[in-house]
Amino acid sequence: MEIEIATIGGYEEVGRNCTAVRAGDDIVIFDMGLNLSKVLLHDNVETEQMHSLDLIDMGAIPDDRVMSELEGDVQAIVPTHGHLDHIGAIAKLAHRYDAPIVASPFTLELVKGQLEGEQKFGVDNELVEMEAGESMLIGEECELEFVHVTHSIIDAVNPVLHTPEGAIVYGLDKRIDHSPVLEEPFDMERFREIGREGEGVLAYIEDCTNAGRKGRTPSESVARRHLKDAMQSMEDYSGGIVATTFSSHVSRVKSLVEFAREIGRQPVLLGRSMERYSGAAERLGKVDFPGDLGMFGHRKSVDRSFKRIMNEGKGNFLPIVTGHQGEPRAMLTRMGRGETPYEIEEGDKVIFSARVIPEPTNEGQRYQSEQLLRMQGARIYDDIHVSGHLREEGHYKMIETLQPQNIIPAHQNMKGFSPYVDLAKSQGYKLGRDLHVTSNGNRIQLVE
Amino acid sequence: MEIEIATIGGYEEVGRNCTAVRAGDDIVIFDMGLNLSKVLLHDNVETEQMHSLDLIDMGAIPDDRVMSELEGDVQAIVPTHGHLDHIGAIAKLAHRYDAPIVASPFTLELVKGQLEGEQKFGVDNELVEMEAGESMLIGEECELEFVHVTHSIIDAVNPVLHTPEGAIVYGLDKRIDHSPVLEEPFDMERFREIGREGEGVLAYIEDCTNAGRKGRTPSESVARRHLKDAMQSMEDYSGGIVATTFSSHVSRVKSLVEFAREIGRQPVLLGRSMERYSGAAERLGKVDFPGDLGMFGHRKSVDRSFKRIMNEGKGNFLPIVTGHQGEPRAMLTRMGRGETPYEIEEGDKVIFSARVIPEPTNEGQRYQSEQLLRMQGARIYDDIHVSGHLREEGHYKMIETLQPQNIIPAHQNMKGFSPYVDLAKSQGYKLGRDLHVTSNGNRIQLVE
Amino acid sequence: MEIEIATIGGYEEVGRNCTAVRAGDDIVIFDMGLNLSKVLLHDNVETEQMHSLDLIDMGAIPDDRVMSELEGDVQAIVPTHGHLDHIGAIAKLAHRYDAPIVASPFTLELVKGQLEGEQKFGVDNELVEMEAGESMLIGEECELEFVHVTHSIIDAVNPVLHTPEGAIVYGLDKRIDHSPVLEEPFDMERFREIGREGEGVLAYIEDCTNAGRKGRTPSESVARRHLKDAMQSMEDYSGGIVATTFSSHVSRVKSLVEFAREIGRQPVLLGRSMERYSGAAERLGKVDFPGDLGMFGHRKSVDRSFKRIMNEGKGNFLPIVTGHQGEPRAMLTRMGRGETPYEIEEGDKVIFSARVIPEPTNEGQRYQSEQLLRMQGARIYDDIHVSGHLREEGHYKMIETLQPQNIIPAHQNMKGFSPYVDLAKSQGYKLGRDLHVTSNGNRIQLVE
Amino acid sequence: MEIEIATIGGYEEVGRNCTAVRAGDDIVIFDMGLNLSKVLLHDNVETEQMHSLDLIDMGAIPDDRVMSELEGDVQAIVPTHGHLDHIGAIAKLAHRYDAPIVASPFTLELVKGQLEGEQKFGVDNELVEMEAGESMLIGEECELEFVHVTHSIIDAVNPVLHTPEGAIVYGLDKRIDHSPVLEEPFDMERFREIGREGEGVLAYIEDCTNAGRKGRTPSESVARRHLKDAMQSMEDYSGGIVATTFSSHVSRVKSLVEFAREIGRQPVLLGRSMERYSGAAERLGKVDFPGDLGMFGHRKSVDRSFKRIMNEGKGNFLPIVTGHQGEPRAMLTRMGRGETPYEIEEGDKVIFSARVIPEPTNEGQRYQSEQLLRMQGARIYDDIHVSGHLREEGHYKMIETLQPQNIIPAHQNMKGFSPYVDLAKSQGYKLGRDLHVTSNGNRIQLVE
Repeated sequence: MEIEIATIGGYEEVGRNCTAVRAGDDIVIFDMGLNLSKVLLHDNVETEQMHSLDLIDMGAIPDDRVMSELEGDVQAIVPTHGHLDHIGAIAKLAHRYDAPIVASPFTLELVKGQLEGEQKFGVDNELVEMEAGESMLIGEECELEFVHVTHSIIDAVNPVLHTPEGAIVYGLDKRIDHSPVLEEPFDMERFREIGREGEGVLAYIEDCTNAGRKGRTPSESVARRHLKDAMQSMEDYSGGIVATTFSSHVSRVKSLVEFAREIGRQPVLLGRSMERYSGAAERLGKVDFPGDLGMFGHRKSVDRSFKRIMNEGKGNFLPIVTGHQGEPRAMLTRMGRGETPYEIEEGDKVIFSARVIPEPTNEGQRYQSEQLLRMQGARIYDDIHVSGHLREEGHYKMIETLQPQNIIPAHQNMKGFSPYVDLAKSQGYKLGRDLHVTSNGNRIQLVE
Repeated sequence: MEIEIATIGGYEEVGRNCTAVRAGDDIVIFDMGLNLSKVLLHDNVETEQMHSLDLIDMGAIPDDRVMSELEGDVQAIVPTHGHLDHIGAIAKLAHRYDAPIVASPFTLELVKGQLEGEQKFGVDNELVEMEAGESMLIGEECELEFVHVTHSIIDAVNPVLHTPEGAIVYGLDKRIDHSPVLEEPFDMERFREIGREGEGVLAYIEDCTNAGRKGRTPSESVARRHLKDAMQSMEDYSGGIVATTFSSHVSRVKSLVEFAREIGRQPVLLGRSMERYSGAAERLGKVDFPGDLGMFGHRKSVDRSFKRIMNEGKGNFLPIVTGHQGEPRAMLTRMGRGETPYEIEEGDKVIFSARVIPEPTNEGQRYQSEQLLRMQGARIYDDIHVSGHLREEGHYKMIETLQPQNIIPAHQNMKGFSPYVDLAKSQGYKLGRDLHVTSNGNRIQLVE
Repeated sequence: MEIEIATIGGYEEVGRNCTAVRAGDDIVIFDMGLNLSKVLLHDNVETEQMHSLDLIDMGAIPDDRVMSELEGDVQAIVPTHGHLDHIGAIAKLAHRYDAPIVASPFTLELVKGQLEGEQKFGVDNELVEMEAGESMLIGEECELEFVHVTHSIIDAVNPVLHTPEGAIVYGLDKRIDHSPVLEEPFDMERFREIGREGEGVLAYIEDCTNAGRKGRTPSESVARRHLKDAMQSMEDYSGGIVATTFSSHVSRVKSLVEFAREIGRQPVLLGRSMERYSGAAERLGKVDFPGDLGMFGHRKSVDRSFKRIMNEGKGNFLPIVTGHQGEPRAMLTRMGRGETPYEIEEGDKVIFSARVIPEPTNEGQRYQSEQLLRMQGARIYDDIHVSGHLREEGHYKMIETLQPQNIIPAHQNMKGFSPYVDLAKSQGYKLGRDLHVTSNGNRIQLVE
Repeated sequence: MEIEIATIGGYEEVGRNCTAVRAGDDIVIFDMGLNLSKVLLHDNVETEQMHSLDLIDMGAIPDDRVMSELEGDVQAIVPTHGHLDHIGAIAKLAHRYDAPIVASPFTLELVKGQLEGEQKFGVDNELVEMEAGESMLIGEECELEFVHVTHSIIDAVNPVLHTPEGAIVYGLDKRIDHSPVLEEPFDMERFREIGREGEGVLAYIEDCTNAGRKGRTPSESVARRHLKDAMQSMEDYSGGIVATTFSSHVSRVKSLVEFAREIGRQPVLLGRSMERYSGAAERLGKVDFPGDLGMFGHRKSVDRSFKRIMNEGKGNFLPIVTGHQGEPRAMLTRMGRGETPYEIEEGDKVIFSARVIPEPTNEGQRYQSEQLLRMQGARIYDDIHVSGHLREEGHYKMIETLQPQNIIPAHQNMKGFSPYVDLAKSQGYKLGRDLHVTSNGNRIQLVE
């Protein structure tokens, strides 16, 4: 059976991930992501109203023209988890394919949100829910399986396409976490089996984000311990404390909520995306929040909530808000500019349970946000966080476990691939033979 | 009563700390430290055989000539903890003063080691042990108290000189740790009392090392959790694992020893200073190591130990060694160069439970050490560590707690003082009035 | 005669410089500057319409309340050169003092521009022109002299107040340039005389901006040589070339204009501040531009000029525009966003004859501007520039030349003072004795 | 005719460059370089006495085993210029091939030095001198031409192998300099012709060192102008001035010699490699030094020279010495440690007309060297230098000029290739089609 891989997006950048695998006549597309930084370069761009071609020209969504060269039918569109660089282009591209969108429950919920927001295209692909550990047939000879992985969002999977020629493991976005805060540990056992089963692993597509960092990505439980230490030290503070984190990072939000309680404060989630992600997780039973946990997204209800906090005393609350990157329109930035009823005073604490994404625009905005907060007397606690991506040791482990016949580095540009390539070479792979460094819009023929 | 402070060393550098406080006719000297980096600039310098004046000229030990301007008698020399930048010059300077050396048990044990190694001077000052929480009279009107603090070495104290004019708190080298691994938590309660008692705090001498870092220094228990995560992930590795950390950091050594056991390995401490510090802590009952924990310092016994490890299988052991900064003569560096019987193989793990001290010489040596280890196939886990010094928030907390009438930044040069000065100014202190930025060899008259 | 110095602004930041010197009953105020970065933190602030007190609260202009403690009459307000951090607060503060504004011709011209733009206060202080090399009486016993210095703007001076107790040299903002492009070389000869005359130099107030940089600030002629090399290499390019630099840096603009001619292009200055500074310099005969050099500031005339360039062929022109820091509303940024008629095409060159001011907000904006330009195919030439501030060697030279009895570091915060303090200490000065590290709002009594 | 390229060394590092081109049965090997940093990782390694295989294992010299797969005869070994990363392995590898070593006169002279130092192998390949602009036959159908390029060493060439299938341009190590200090300008005219002649350029092998740096590498004349500015500013200094630069950089040495004269000092070249390179250049008539210019390499004559300088007055001399990277055994480092008769005093100047090679080992050593010099009072002038490698714009220019059918990035690892690959892609090249990213030990078949 012919096996071919089309590297559509995410091979020259971090963002707009998209990869198609053709096995015989059947095609599966993994991820359709957005490169948000390309959008933010421009002022006042509203992607909801834009046409795909313009977004492709901007480098914001995957350029899927290479799909026309692939002879076969798309059987499934498979987003691996709910981050925008994996699902953010579905609303713009999925309607071009007559295929269902197959995802884990939480991911699917977020995809629905994307589709509802879309104003340009009518997307009516079927939405199919599949849990980690489950499989479905693709065409007559292939099977799509979801393996549970741990990442900085819940319900992430690594999809595996089992073909007669061996398994194709689409390995983006994970860390090996043996003690995550929500969910089960990383399913290493299943990867071990996949490495040994049948024809073994024909190809492994890997996320190189942290490949140049030494050692092991710490467990979410390490960030949780760090956060606990910081928050407990604030126990006797009677003024305002505010926290921000990735709104999609429900495990972290859960820790913030718990520690707020422990130090005698009522947590409140504020900001549209805080409400969206945590609300979705709660509805699906993925997280168990206190019954009275407030979540407010609309401007009016947020303001009402802030007024209540000011009236009842800042010392009784922990607002958990958006704005960890200093995004100009996010809640924390607005708080810094004094645009909300919440008043920051000398000595108030602001916890950034996140890391600045190392790009000058973010760094500038975050700096500006911190400056505004500090001018009002706020004290910043930053970097209480761990990454969601494998470092060096995780990559060694995955290669040892899967023993793939071919490796395709992804989720980076060539500079980002570079440390991963060195690592793979040290394990016996060879550029151009079984180690495929490529760019967007290419095809790799694995079995002819 | 006249109160005067002489800023002898550590006011233009990190290293060679030394401060004298005169209360009437009685003087106490806090710390007599070494600036190791000034020694290491030169090849083949053996400080044990050098004269004080040459070491002063090199900038290696405090220039105590300002002491001749102080009218009074030295009643005690008080090292606060056992790091070299606090005790490393005692063997060179203490004999000039007719005064006992007063220190906590572990610190005193390490001072003894210093004195025994000294070859140039005969130092026969009385050695007096005093525990945190205890006090002694200084002259007729003053009292010296030791307050228990948490740092990256056990048995650290902040000495407080109680005078009729108020307390002088010598606050160097601590973090506020509510859950340290060994010892009791930081004694904030006692500092609170000192802030409120009698005349309050006349002067606070503070360590500015991390004053420019946002937030709170994490607890040792956070580093421990991080270390546990890393070591547990190696549980199924059957080859060599080696760890290095500050040999004086007995709490960390203790964690390494425990986690070694947990993953089925026998820990062994190797290297002269590993043996010295951990041996001392064990003799004094400060730490409880397994009865069969090997500690070897002499070249021959180290080599014998390595041979045994190679014979019985690297997979059964965890050597805990010196060399975290890539020091050319340390154990790990020698292992990297293949100068020991221990053979590093592809896939072996090396844990740096330490941070590179950010200075180009260290960075170069550490890089070289890592390169040599990697060339043999080792995989590096680095930065599994937390600092022992207060960050921004700790400084705010101490000022709020002590409400000192005067603040004297120390343990840095002026660049290092700068963020602390900003912080103190935000709390109402004013340069030249009650906030004293100074340099080595000066006197500050607090009460005339 | 009592001599006292009030350090009003610029002693905790780069920006809002302001220092008053009182000699007996007579006071001279040197500089009244703006801290632009504090303004830019806020969106949509228009300083022209703001009240002084609000600007003081923002940290944007000097807090001159300490002036009320100075017993004497302000005899002159003396801006040293035309940069905003030296003249930008005159329109907000000068009217409080019944004293003329004394400045060199080009500086005075720019001060006029400031006063004309002011909408909140009526400022009618007398404007007095004084050339470098000239002097005027201050009160009955003092004399104010202007010494010619070289900086990144023309007509900069170091004012010297000659008092019976010695000279006070206000030494901000200069480099020692023996071969500047416009103007005479740095007047070292006069400084030598001042160092030897009468009572010598009582106090030297120094700009510490580059004190931590090794060696010597290169001459403007070095930047000119670098620029020439870059521009000559473009000689055979037939598409668009655009240059940007500090609009106040007329010497650099002059070089750009000349080299444009040399490679067969017609230079055009575009942008409001380009027109303002270069226009002023030309009117005053400080620079000799080609008769047909276009300068356009108003939106309409800029657009007309761009249309003409597009019609006649980009290859025939060199637009010299604002926007070197990526300022969102500057010309080059607008060109990057495609908001002007000038179309950037693949291969077009953009010369940044400037350095990014190292602050995260600038770095973010400049990055964004470059990204937008690059997305259209532009190729960036950056860092063709030299600093206008003395480095280490210049500071040694000035101290050796003036032999001041007192030194007061300025134009930085304490972190920035730090390397200068080390340098001064190496020359025998001592903190708290004759080396005065201070902050905003303090007074230093030199002669009582 | 079959055309094949073997990428032997320098495709995974900076250093040990080596590439073979096979045209039919004839093979030319370009460069045989050393990776010095791999040697320096080890203490006390003397490469002169080491066997090739050990050096290959260390990663120090090219692993030429891939040559056995190439069917044909080596007709020439062609080092492009005299830097060690291009000629440093000739003594270890050339004897394996029955072929002459063909090089420009200065390069050949340096190759001879290498061969004379060799103690392990007898190398008796014929040495053939060929000037830039000349050609020689390779086999029956090919021609080898030397094109004159400008680099940080004189007499550098880009060799071009003209085959019936088109030209192979081996483009390593150059900048486009239109006004070098010695020699003719870069021969762009000849490259233009090569781009248009016959079959055009079949393949271009390019040095990616600075491909990620914006703009244009400045001309040597820009560094010369900078150096002149610095040295003229020292004209009235009567104490010691010392300069260091790359000893192979004869143009820079020439400028130092000239400016020494201009400020009334007698230049003296000190250090073994200073003597070797400058001596060779002078013997070959490549540079015109003053008749009485002293050059001393042997320890004894260096010491004698230093003594004479100390006797006659440091103010009359400019020692130009080795040690710009802080190499532990170089002259300047020894001067810093006080191991030579030259005494450095407060105020003496040390000019580093070089840039630190950005690698932690160098940075540590250079830092240490500067510290030792500064402790004696020396003042450091650093970074008076320009790179010898093309930046972004030079790469665009070369691609536009040559219009190569294939591009092979070299002289870097994959991370270093990355910006060049982006650049080439923007010019229409495509990875895996005509843009060949590869690693050491591979073969690229261009014509089958």
